[in-house]
Amino acid sequence: MNGAHALLATLEANDVNVCFANPGTSEMHFVAALDDAPAMRGILCLFEGVATGAADGYARVKDSPAATLLHLGPGLANGWANLHNARRARVPLLNIVGDHATYHAHLDAPLQSNVQLLADALEGWYCRTTSSDDLAGDAARAIEAAYGPPGRVATLVLPADVSWSDVGSVPSSWPRTERPSPRAIDDATFERALAALRSKRCTIFLGGNALSKEQTGLAQRVASATSSRLMMETFATKMDRGAGVASPERLIYVSEFAVDQLKETEVLVLVGSTEPVGFFAYPNVPSRLAPENCEIIHVAPPGSDTLGALEALVEALRAPTVALEHGEPTVPPSGELTTQSFSAAVGATLKEGVIVADESNTSGIHLFGATRFAPEHQWMTLTGGAIGYGLPVALGAAVASKGRVLALESDGSMMYTLQALWTMAREGLDVTVVGLSNRSYAVLNMELTRVGAVTDGGASARMLELDDPTLDLSRLAQAQGVPSVRVTSADELVVALERTYATPGPMFIEAVLPKGLH
Amino acid sequence: MNGAHALLATLEANDVNVCFANPGTSEMHFVAALDDAPAMRGILCLFEGVATGAADGYARVKDSPAATLLHLGPGLANGWANLHNARRARVPLLNIVGDHATYHAHLDAPLQSNVQLLADALEGWYCRTTSSDDLAGDAARAIEAAYGPPGRVATLVLPADVSWSDVGSVPSSWPRTERPSPRAIDDATFERALAALRSKRCTIFLGGNALSKEQTGLAQRVASATSSRLMMETFATKMDRGAGVASPERLIYVSEFAVDQLKETEVLVLVGSTEPVGFFAYPNVPSRLAPENCEIIHVAPPGSDTLGALEALVEALRAPTVALEHGEPTVPPSGELTTQSFSAAVGATLKEGVIVADESNTSGIHLFGATRFAPEHQWMTLTGGAIGYGLPVALGAAVASKGRVLALESDGSMMYTLQALWTMAREGLDVTVVGLSNRSYAVLNMELTRVGAVTDGGASARMLELDDPTLDLSRLAQAQGVPSVRVTSADELVVALERTYATPGPMFIEAVLPKGLH
Repeated sequence: MNGAHALLATLEANDVNVCFANPGTSEMHFVAALDDAPAMRGILCLFEGVATGAADGYARVKDSPAATLLHLGPGLANGWANLHNARRARVPLLNIVGDHATYHAHLDAPLQSNVQLLADALEGWYCRTTSSDDLAGDAARAIEAAYGPPGRVATLVLPADVSWSDVGSVPSSWPRTERPSPRAIDDATFERALAALRSKRCTIFLGGNALSKEQTGLAQRVASATSSRLMMETFATKMDRGAGVASPERLIYVSEFAVDQLKETEVLVLVGSTEPVGFFAYPNVPSRLAPENCEIIHVAPPGSDTLGALEALVEALRAPTVALEHGEPTVPPSGELTTQSFSAAVGATLKEGVIVADESNTSGIHLFGATRFAPEHQWMTLTGGAIGYGLPVALGAAVASKGRVLALESDGSMMYTLQALWTMAREGLDVTVVGLSNRSYAVLNMELTRVGAVTDGGASARMLELDDPTLDLSRLAQAQGVPSVRVTSADELVVALERTYATPGPMFIEAVLPKGLH
Repeated sequence: MNGAHALLATLEANDVNVCFANPGTSEMHFVAALDDAPAMRGILCLFEGVATGAADGYARVKDSPAATLLHLGPGLANGWANLHNARRARVPLLNIVGDHATYHAHLDAPLQSNVQLLADALEGWYCRTTSSDDLAGDAARAIEAAYGPPGRVATLVLPADVSWSDVGSVPSSWPRTERPSPRAIDDATFERALAALRSKRCTIFLGGNALSKEQTGLAQRVASATSSRLMMETFATKMDRGAGVASPERLIYVSEFAVDQLKETEVLVLVGSTEPVGFFAYPNVPSRLAPENCEIIHVAPPGSDTLGALEALVEALRAPTVALEHGEPTVPPSGELTTQSFSAAVGATLKEGVIVADESNTSGIHLFGATRFAPEHQWMTLTGGAIGYGLPVALGAAVASKGRVLALESDGSMMYTLQALWTMAREGLDVTVVGLSNRSYAVLNMELTRVGAVTDGGASARMLELDDPTLDLSRLAQAQGVPSVRVTSADELVVALERTYATPGPMFIEAVLPKGLH
């Protein structure tokens, strides 16, 4: 039994049984050991950003870690952007990064680099194992670190010789790490929040793990009993939504509007989230979005018992149940395909239990409204701002889930990690991708104005337009084995969506919108 | 005049006039300022790894830096793997990484990360500018750092407010950095090398900048006059090759064979290169490839005056000129498409002045032989081992060159940075890509055996095979606007290559090889 076998046995003992892999030479013993680890599902990805984003999506759905398998510094770097998103999503994730043999590293071979710096920049957990006998213990510690709470990216560096060397003494059982409970709520802070809710103009601000149906329902009762406002962060890791689910008001991405949303708030009560700040700085717009004299109470920080906090608030306030909000389901749209009719088509066709991975950016501006009273579903967003999260996260979510995943993806964003489509086809996953073609970095056209940049020429426009040449999105999917269709009207989009919900396996729908921002 | 204008003016003053860009919100003022900087050519890339690889390719051809424009930590991370290759190629390269406004960073907004750690892992040069008035000076220092010698990756972090704030006092001229001369050769080391060449069994080992026609010619004279062996590193940044050019023996990638090549060497005289070491470690194979008691003389380290060293050796030895080696040009192949006939097709059709970017991996094993007596051309290889260098480097080389670039690219490798194809189409570049479809990570099948990993099952095989589903390479290119053709015989490949040399603009040729390693 070599190190790779011990590592896989420890992963299996801790129920880490999916590995999104893009291996190289240093990982060959791990790959070979997969043949002796039938409980581990190895899933090949053609680019590391796909593997890491998939592990993020898997963790969002399962709330437990998948492993990645990456190849030295460049492999970790290629996966870094989606690890950054996973870090911001606060999900548990285990990176296994193969590296040069311990005795080879000092020779500065071509692939040698400082892997630790890359891992440290993820502000998670890092360990480089130097002996096969340490590997099982280090792997268990890595899984423990990944759990947090809150969830973190744990990176275990696996030198090739650690992987291939025999384990000195095989233990009778592999180390198992217990999943830790969420951290307890601080009593004094709780009392402060309670007093504020009873007496001040409060906004209850939900984020992170606090966006389950149960918790938004409890928060709604607290808000209703105290005449507080109920809001949520702009970019949720995962939230329950739809008919029968409370719907907190979403903080608007545009800082000016967010400031306006919060301007009456005397006390901001944070549950599962951190203080809301501007996604970017803009000239003459505050970076902190709450009013200057607003008190901020971190009643249930990320990783703490948000559910317990909300239950305790409901109990202390004797907050009565709140009648479910009713609304009309969205009517299937007809005619021209616009951002509005696109959203209506999604809302009108959405099925119960669907998990949505939303990276539609400017094209998706009407989605939340159009899906408000759709059957109960889950919604995931771009937590860390690193573009290219949507397809990989949808892939990982589909591996973790029994239901269908709907990825809403812009053309510009899709191009960062389009290799995810191949793995969707290979694994026969129930993912529907709507690829929105607006031939533009439309969000940047908006941002250009917002930051006050003055442009008058073709050179700048050429950095923002994608129509020369136009990307053939459906062909990109077909070329990777995903059945594809192109739709140019709302009616066609409705038909295509209905068909995909009735058809197993992946499907790509290219939705051709008017060019640019609409 | 704001910081962005000052930065662009300084770049222009230092002849940095190409910028491979993948911008975001923080870079909008830089993008807007392009409208006032007509000498700067902004080239949009759909993924950061394309931008950084293109800057590498540009520098390999021009020997002067291009700029990249990247978006915060995730943008730098996405570009990191090809920056690692550029670092190993020792080319000058200037990263401009937009970041949050100076006063926004402490708020830990979603895109906040430690950019410096990522930059430090490139072991080049790093500076974060904090005032618009410092920007021109910092940019000039960055360019100076990039020049080295040897060339380095210089990363200049540009906070958004530094970009948008007015410059206090506009200088009458922008700072200009002089290109430094290569470092002088150490006299004592030179004498030691000379003595060894006169008396010992020497191997002259060329690499880095020492692979120009002039220098390999001089080295050949030294080798001939001293009965030394003339060799070169496995992975050259750029070398002159073909009829009329000296052809050093290439160090074989497989360590066992490389050890055998070097086993008679008493003294290794390094010119432009570092000591040869194994690309990876393998059980029971030495990591250092030269014999244990071999003396190693670093007569002209990377960044030093390799040309001067070779000229001085020729003079000291009064080494006579050497008759040009003659050989038959390769005959156009016919019949089945194999790794052999593929290489013959490339060799038989190659035109004078073509720049080859080779990432054909196992499929390219016969290329060096088949092109030995082709018309004079240049050859670039994967210097840092980070897969996905080929298409971006070809793109950048085509921007820098007036002639045609031929990218020889494997299916597995191509998938890391396939977005380069779109920019080739957009810019109308004279690049021919031969996409080699063997539906396999064939090199890993070879490596699996070499590292002694024993496999017997489908789980490991599934990590190495790309045929479920088969990637449609030509369709991937067409979807991005590059005209494509698929060839399945050697005859068809010859015809397609001849046609592309006669046709302006990009062309993609999918060459379907037998599956796996052949």
